[in-house]
Amino acid sequence: MFSAPLVYRDFFFISFSPARNPIKSFSLRLLDDPSRTESQDNMASFDGPGFTMVDGAWIRTKAIDVESSTDISPYLSLLLEDCVWNGNRAIIFDVYWNVESEDAKSEWRLSSVKLSTKNLCLFLRLPNPFHDNLNDLYRFFASKFVTFVGVQIKEDLALLKENHGIVIRSSLEIGKLAATARGTPIVEFLGTRELAHKILWYDMSRLDSIQSKWDEAESKDRLEAAAIEGWLIYNVYDQLQQ
Amino acid sequence: MFSAPLVYRDFFFISFSPARNPIKSFSLRLLDDPSRTESQDNMASFDGPGFTMVDGAWIRTKAIDVESSTDISPYLSLLLEDCVWNGNRAIIFDVYWNVESEDAKSEWRLSSVKLSTKNLCLFLRLPNPFHDNLNDLYRFFASKFVTFVGVQIKEDLALLKENHGIVIRSSLEIGKLAATARGTPIVEFLGTRELAHKILWYDMSRLDSIQSKWDEAESKDRLEAAAIEGWLIYNVYDQLQQ
Amino acid sequence: MFSAPLVYRDFFFISFSPARNPIKSFSLRLLDDPSRTESQDNMASFDGPGFTMVDGAWIRTKAIDVESSTDISPYLSLLLEDCVWNGNRAIIFDVYWNVESEDAKSEWRLSSVKLSTKNLCLFLRLPNPFHDNLNDLYRFFASKFVTFVGVQIKEDLALLKENHGIVIRSSLEIGKLAATARGTPIVEFLGTRELAHKILWYDMSRLDSIQSKWDEAESKDRLEAAAIEGWLIYNVYDQLQQ
Amino acid sequence: MFSAPLVYRDFFFISFSPARNPIKSFSLRLLDDPSRTESQDNMASFDGPGFTMVDGAWIRTKAIDVESSTDISPYLSLLLEDCVWNGNRAIIFDVYWNVESEDAKSEWRLSSVKLSTKNLCLFLRLPNPFHDNLNDLYRFFASKFVTFVGVQIKEDLALLKENHGIVIRSSLEIGKLAATARGTPIVEFLGTRELAHKILWYDMSRLDSIQSKWDEAESKDRLEAAAIEGWLIYNVYDQLQQ
Amino acid sequence: MFSAPLVYRDFFFISFSPARNPIKSFSLRLLDDPSRTESQDNMASFDGPGFTMVDGAWIRTKAIDVESSTDISPYLSLLLEDCVWNGNRAIIFDVYWNVESEDAKSEWRLSSVKLSTKNLCLFLRLPNPFHDNLNDLYRFFASKFVTFVGVQIKEDLALLKENHGIVIRSSLEIGKLAATARGTPIVEFLGTRELAHKILWYDMSRLDSIQSKWDEAESKDRLEAAAIEGWLIYNVYDQLQQ
Amino acid sequence: MFSAPLVYRDFFFISFSPARNPIKSFSLRLLDDPSRTESQDNMASFDGPGFTMVDGAWIRTKAIDVESSTDISPYLSLLLEDCVWNGNRAIIFDVYWNVESEDAKSEWRLSSVKLSTKNLCLFLRLPNPFHDNLNDLYRFFASKFVTFVGVQIKEDLALLKENHGIVIRSSLEIGKLAATARGTPIVEFLGTRELAHKILWYDMSRLDSIQSKWDEAESKDRLEAAAIEGWLIYNVYDQLQQ
Repeated sequence: MFSAPLVYRDFFFISFSPARNPIKSFSLRLLDDPSRTESQDNMASFDGPGFTMVDGAWIRTKAIDVESSTDISPYLSLLLEDCVWNGNRAIIFDVYWNVESEDAKSEWRLSSVKLSTKNLCLFLRLPNPFHDNLNDLYRFFASKFVTFVGVQIKEDLALLKENHGIVIRSSLEIGKLAATARGTPIVEFLGTRELAHKILWYDMSRLDSIQSKWDEAESKDRLEAAAIEGWLIYNVYDQLQQ
Repeated sequence: MFSAPLVYRDFFFISFSPARNPIKSFSLRLLDDPSRTESQDNMASFDGPGFTMVDGAWIRTKAIDVESSTDISPYLSLLLEDCVWNGNRAIIFDVYWNVESEDAKSEWRLSSVKLSTKNLCLFLRLPNPFHDNLNDLYRFFASKFVTFVGVQIKEDLALLKENHGIVIRSSLEIGKLAATARGTPIVEFLGTRELAHKILWYDMSRLDSIQSKWDEAESKDRLEAAAIEGWLIYNVYDQLQQ
Repeated sequence: MFSAPLVYRDFFFISFSPARNPIKSFSLRLLDDPSRTESQDNMASFDGPGFTMVDGAWIRTKAIDVESSTDISPYLSLLLEDCVWNGNRAIIFDVYWNVESEDAKSEWRLSSVKLSTKNLCLFLRLPNPFHDNLNDLYRFFASKFVTFVGVQIKEDLALLKENHGIVIRSSLEIGKLAATARGTPIVEFLGTRELAHKILWYDMSRLDSIQSKWDEAESKDRLEAAAIEGWLIYNVYDQLQQ
Repeated sequence: MFSAPLVYRDFFFISFSPARNPIKSFSLRLLDDPSRTESQDNMASFDGPGFTMVDGAWIRTKAIDVESSTDISPYLSLLLEDCVWNGNRAIIFDVYWNVESEDAKSEWRLSSVKLSTKNLCLFLRLPNPFHDNLNDLYRFFASKFVTFVGVQIKEDLALLKENHGIVIRSSLEIGKLAATARGTPIVEFLGTRELAHKILWYDMSRLDSIQSKWDEAESKDRLEAAAIEGWLIYNVYDQLQQ
Repeated sequence: MFSAPLVYRDFFFISFSPARNPIKSFSLRLLDDPSRTESQDNMASFDGPGFTMVDGAWIRTKAIDVESSTDISPYLSLLLEDCVWNGNRAIIFDVYWNVESEDAKSEWRLSSVKLSTKNLCLFLRLPNPFHDNLNDLYRFFASKFVTFVGVQIKEDLALLKENHGIVIRSSLEIGKLAATARGTPIVEFLGTRELAHKILWYDMSRLDSIQSKWDEAESKDRLEAAAIEGWLIYNVYDQLQQ
Repeated sequence: MFSAPLVYRDFFFISFSPARNPIKSFSLRLLDDPSRTESQDNMASFDGPGFTMVDGAWIRTKAIDVESSTDISPYLSLLLEDCVWNGNRAIIFDVYWNVESEDAKSEWRLSSVKLSTKNLCLFLRLPNPFHDNLNDLYRFFASKFVTFVGVQIKEDLALLKENHGIVIRSSLEIGKLAATARGTPIVEFLGTRELAHKILWYDMSRLDSIQSKWDEAESKDRLEAAAIEGWLIYNVYDQLQQ
């Protein structure tokens, strides 16, 4: 067992002045085994529902309504740790916007963020306005420790910079890469479900089932759909790497 | 039968705070069979005229004059639902502009929007100025749940952003893709009818017949032409996917 | 015989509110036969001189000095109608500028527009300043019903947008396409006469003859040269499509 | 013999309103034969020195110090006429700048223009500030009747637009084309003499001789060098066309 | 033994006016042998911990908290000197940002810089605000004496210019080059560890071990991880050069 | 022997009005033979130290501290003359910047310029602020008589335009060309020494020796290093031309 504020790694790499940059300590759980139980001594944990994927993989989830007092950094650390242990330093991300229009102009506002690794799926619902504690998210997105992998992210990257000054330094438009790697131009333009279908040919019935009954779906089902989508793109990335 | 506010899916994915984001409930009809009758318990339905395409496909339509009290979201949900059921998450779209010029400058204003799926065709005539209820349209266009497929959309995407702040995050210029996929550069520059003709070689006589007698045409004929064009591009997209 | 305000097609596709968008009715002539005589019941007609091309094609022309009371839409409708009937939805266009310089800056002003189809050639001389009736021209250029085909139009498209807010949504730089399609890079940079010569190898003696005696030429000869150039590019486009 | 204000061709194509756009008449000389003598009845003529090129071609020149009363249009017409007669609608151009710097910024001003055809070379020295009569030059550069061919013109095109609002609608960077056509990337970056040497392998001794004794050279020799350079690029263009 | 203010080389190449540009003299140590001891007569030295890499290479490090009185130039000179001696004029660099967000905007500030050569690794922690002595760093980054090699540096280069006016004149995005050179598009998007793994197939256990226990890690371990990463990219660059 | 103010060639090509543009006369030396002695009647001469290159070539140098009274044009003329005589119209250039930073912004100032031909190397140290006599340098850089060849010049070209309004109309990024011509992408990113090493495989020991002892080096040695670097790039360019 070890604890690692990896989220700050790129920024406060070496602590010359601990007084100015106090080291935060988190007790992290080992995440290498889907069957493992939660560690008792850790306050930050993916204690939301877990889901089994079609290949038997088990995804732990956590959905957080970020308040001014919420410390999201231990969760971000757990994601980074999962990257390290699984030998695949990629975070699958998706962003959700709220838009308010006034005829000739509009205001875009980041409302939620989803972050997935091989075993974890974190869903952050952001406050309006942002609190200081979201600096952790800014730094996380700027990290080059991982590659941030997404589907159709070109406009998102622009909106993040324009509307919030968020910069993702290391990002990958997975559809574009897939189109090049596979020689099938169409996949550059597909959404998550279709892209994954073209590359992986997995059974999508569970995802389709939830998405087609979205209104009746309970929160747990919706979280499962989110987890499935993250896991699908993780597997697309994994396959394109080989 | 199920109901699904899929249109909001990308934005309020998981309802942590139902009070702030009340779930809207729509009773949706199953749309998997062109011969099905309208469900009685659903206020939103594609109850405009239906048309038979040259391959026997049956397209249901709905034309709406959007007022401040109009709720367009159930119709958008029906479109998304049709995407899910037909295993092809694409919305064919077209936008229509009103332009007022004053010698050295001009004002561009989105006047209408056409949205087509395999079985449905929705035609929205927009008010001037826009009302609050058009936020639903903004969010719909920003959704990555589907790919928005159009013909010659480069200038449209720029005009939408400049004049209304509308961002389509997942779009596809179908002519450009067709040119690459087929190795025929000319198709990048063709309009809907010519593009479809080059790719599909369908009989276009009904479309030509209506368009060449536009002035005498009744509303129903015009809607049929709109439905045919949407259906043609849907089939071009479908063929390029294989 | 039919009448069709096709020019408005993209903008007021379906007339929900006839009161706000009254349908204009034009009596249009059939244009499918070069030997046909003018219909008596139609005020808008290409009643300028007709010219025979080197392959025997017959081009009808119309030159209009646009005043504030001039209604150009019936002529635009006739062009669109000709596109529909000839199965080749392309309008060959050329724009002419007036420029007034003041040492370190200059003012660019659209002075004339030439629009050609297979059988017709329309030449519009524009007023200064523009009148309200030119909104029809703005909408015509924005139409995706046809592809606007031109030679060396890159700077024109920029000047149209910068100086008048005119947007051509569906345009084609014919020389660029020809260079790609034929594998001869030089043709991207040629003017109308040279481009047509390289692609078609037609006899250019009539065009050369008029252009080399421009000063002595009468209006009819100049209109013939304009008609020949439009017809040449139409044929280049036609050939590149096959 | 004929007279042709071809320079205005693109702008006032058809004279509907002669009162507003009076036709200027010029008596032009036939230029098809290098051995021809000057016509007596023509005030505008290339009556500067003539030079024999290494292949025996004979180039007529004219150098003009443009004053407010100078009418340059007949000379421009003669250039266009030469293009028509020689079946190669290209004008070789070069521009010369005066630059005044003030430490952190600079002012760029077009000081001279050289225009060459197969048989003619025109050198215009421009006044400061520009007079109204230079509108003819603005219109000439905007013409699509010819292709304006130059060496290393990218910065020139930007400077012309930024500093004077001059737009060349139809231009060709000859080095870039030569690099593509010949598959030798280096020629994209060469100057006139080196580019011509790589493509034509002509004897450059006369040009080198003048340029290396520039200070001692008389005006006639300098004009000869200008004529040779224009003629060289004309021949490069001619060869790349075949 | 020799001393060389190479860092100023590009800027004050030849000292015409020593009074205005006094030559700074540094006593530099020879760095050609990992087993060499520190020279006694030199105040600037990489006297931080040294680390052995998996191939036996020995890396000397130095971490500096830059104050207003700190002279960083001797350390930069030592880096340049190491480049010269090892016949591979590349500096591997990484930059670390601090970001403070305020809802709709953010402030990016360069907080640290890591610079690696074959044998050395320098880690500079920068003050807020910058002092005059950082001009040395500006000049160093602008030097063309070496190529600055980094991973995922596109956004960094933009942020450096926008936020601090720092320009790196000679930079290399190593992942992009690797993708081209090896024909594996995915490596363009990988982070340091994954990129190095794909190209070099070295044992990464020491790096992984430190990074997964970051929180417990002592400063020395963190510096070792920094040194390993710099050394890995140095070797990737070295291999791509051959 | 001849004199040639070639530097003005592009700007005041033909002296119509000698009063406004008085011809400057310089007595230039013949530079075709490395063993030639200085001509007595010429005030401008490369009378700095001469250096022998590894292939026996002999480079004459001149380093000038530009004051308000310094006339640099005769030296620029000598460079142009050397280009003409050696049949390779290229000037190898390098620029040196001074940068003053103030935390969030910086001021870039051109401090020195190095210009090399086959036989000559000129090093100009520029004053602050610039004097009127630097207009000659502006005009020289704008000349298309030669190609200005440099290493990693992309940022330099931008900085020259932004900070001083200097435009180089005819420039060549030699590394980019070499990468294309040789099919080795890495050389696009190398500095002078490494690029030359990859293309020419010359002995670099003299250059390395001086650069590694920069601090102890005398002015003459530094000038030799500058001359060697210019000569190396000249030879890279020469080889890529063949």
